[in-house]
Amino acid sequence: MDVVDIINDLKSFRRKDIPYSRVLSSMCTSPHPIAVKAHQLFIETNLGDPGIFVGTWELERKLISMIGKLLHKNDCAGYICSGGTEANIQGIRSARNLKRVKKPNIVIPKSAHFSFEKIGDILGVRIKRVGLDEDYRVNTSEVEKKIDKNTIAIVGIAGTTELGQVDPIDELSEIAIEKDVKLHVDAAFGGLVIPFMDKKFPFDFELEGVSSITIDPHKMGMATIPAGGILFRDESYLRALEVETPYLTSKYQYTLTGTRPGASVASAYAVLKYLGFKGMKRIIERCLKNTILLVEEMQKLGFEPVIEPIMNVVSFKTKKAEKIKEELYKRRWVISTIKEPRAIRMVIMPHVNEEIVLNFIEEFKRVIKSINAI
Amino acid sequence: MDVVDIINDLKSFRRKDIPYSRVLSSMCTSPHPIAVKAHQLFIETNLGDPGIFVGTWELERKLISMIGKLLHKNDCAGYICSGGTEANIQGIRSARNLKRVKKPNIVIPKSAHFSFEKIGDILGVRIKRVGLDEDYRVNTSEVEKKIDKNTIAIVGIAGTTELGQVDPIDELSEIAIEKDVKLHVDAAFGGLVIPFMDKKFPFDFELEGVSSITIDPHKMGMATIPAGGILFRDESYLRALEVETPYLTSKYQYTLTGTRPGASVASAYAVLKYLGFKGMKRIIERCLKNTILLVEEMQKLGFEPVIEPIMNVVSFKTKKAEKIKEELYKRRWVISTIKEPRAIRMVIMPHVNEEIVLNFIEEFKRVIKSINAI
Repeated sequence: MDVVDIINDLKSFRRKDIPYSRVLSSMCTSPHPIAVKAHQLFIETNLGDPGIFVGTWELERKLISMIGKLLHKNDCAGYICSGGTEANIQGIRSARNLKRVKKPNIVIPKSAHFSFEKIGDILGVRIKRVGLDEDYRVNTSEVEKKIDKNTIAIVGIAGTTELGQVDPIDELSEIAIEKDVKLHVDAAFGGLVIPFMDKKFPFDFELEGVSSITIDPHKMGMATIPAGGILFRDESYLRALEVETPYLTSKYQYTLTGTRPGASVASAYAVLKYLGFKGMKRIIERCLKNTILLVEEMQKLGFEPVIEPIMNVVSFKTKKAEKIKEELYKRRWVISTIKEPRAIRMVIMPHVNEEIVLNFIEEFKRVIKSINAI
Repeated sequence: MDVVDIINDLKSFRRKDIPYSRVLSSMCTSPHPIAVKAHQLFIETNLGDPGIFVGTWELERKLISMIGKLLHKNDCAGYICSGGTEANIQGIRSARNLKRVKKPNIVIPKSAHFSFEKIGDILGVRIKRVGLDEDYRVNTSEVEKKIDKNTIAIVGIAGTTELGQVDPIDELSEIAIEKDVKLHVDAAFGGLVIPFMDKKFPFDFELEGVSSITIDPHKMGMATIPAGGILFRDESYLRALEVETPYLTSKYQYTLTGTRPGASVASAYAVLKYLGFKGMKRIIERCLKNTILLVEEMQKLGFEPVIEPIMNVVSFKTKKAEKIKEELYKRRWVISTIKEPRAIRMVIMPHVNEEIVLNFIEEFKRVIKSINAI
């Protein structure tokens, strides 16, 4: 096939995708234009071979320390990975390798991402889920009770997938220190939201019990996919992940994958450099403003949020959640649902501007009318 | 910072990277121009959410069946992943989940990639390494002896990292059937070489014992990073990897990562479509021709290959391997080394054309003279 035919062929597939302008379910978004430019410049780079890609490797070190600074630890250790799942695997794996017990378990909130089930299966770690309080934050006294001699780590969520809620990480930190277990914070989404919010939620390395943090530039960092992040308090956690690398330009490798794109690292770096703290804050504030707009419009239609939104994730109670989702999908609008309580869920990413919120509301009105959802 | 400053900043890092024109150690290469074009078109796509990226998902299905066809199984199951390590993890994890034993082990050749140590650690699977015959192919009678009731899988390599050797996969297939264990073939490199070679090496699904194959488009498929591939004989292997996905447009997820770039999938598809079987064969033949050229030139200098090269990977015996590598690196040329036997190793990727081979030989001559390596 010649180039033109192939491009046309590819475009015919791409056209079947639903554009982000109709997506209110995703924690990813259109990458920032500067991210795309940076990505292009580094398209052939491979961080799996740092002796070849010396500059790209240095760039990754710089990015890690930029994110570390944001999380109150300039000199943290870590790397940019394939996404939240790899980051969570590595956080838990490091804890597991640092405390060898026969039947390791971790204590995590019921609200933790479904991928923790996958992580449990992969790593052979038992997952003990803990209930939530009335605000859907983890019940810390239950966490304390569930910790036993085989517990290698507890997990707190800073920005839950379903509700954008933040667990009381400060209390979890106290517990972790007291019980001598690691505390892994899954801030895949919230890590690049909370630092830019006026209301303060302690969740990062300023809390002494926090050992590792998942924070994904390809979510609220507007980087290209794949750009997840796993940060550790210090190098010793990385050491626990290392294997020897006989044929590479490095001697050891602590990453889960071998070959690793430098392109998305450059993209994440470029966005943070371009926007700076103020620019990020502006974007987060716009997302929060549009979240409030959505809530107000939904309330006019009789839908109440499950909790007062903390960040740009919001769920609205309705028994007809699945039906509403399906009807919207037929009209090429994408939202998602949660089960406890039954609700429809929206994420107000940077691509969801005021106009999209209002367009969505118009379609939503037609949908609820058509299925008598109110 | 403004856009121009950021681009300049990024370029200053990128300039420190060693260009591929001086790299003879990597199993990755500059992506094909059509790969870069395709990548661009799909830059924002996320295969972790197939209900949004309906067309991109369809494209991945098509690519999997194209690769499946090449591997004698049009209707195989699988997906495009982050690379060889994830592919090998998933192959072994699937075998582990299909045969639950308390202390699972796998039997793999000594020549298997170092990442199998990582996989053993991650999955809690014991790695039993088996010796090689005089041609550095796995000793199959030793494989047979090492299989016990806790063995969940055996592994064969089609294109070893160190020498490009191919294990007797047909014999391993017989053993796998006889002993009722899975056979995972790591063809991360060789999977996109062997099908295009005149000499035949049975290694794929045409052998009935083969359960899963790692085959990476971002190596000899000239796709953008990350594009690894894991293929299974049928869907049942994927079922063994699934977890529920409450908030996504799909119900289950069998991939290791959640968010997954569609861009590199599009790139891999575009290269195979553009080149077709004949075009791929032409590129492989050129790589093999340049490998022979390198061998001839090295022989003139008194260096003998460890084995007669099978594909475009070749190692040359020398006790001064490390020293030679270091001296070349000082001059910004990258090769690698192996330990058993002590040798220097080169991979003749598509970017290593005749001119680069000859330039390399010139520098190599100066290096061996400077350190009296001959």
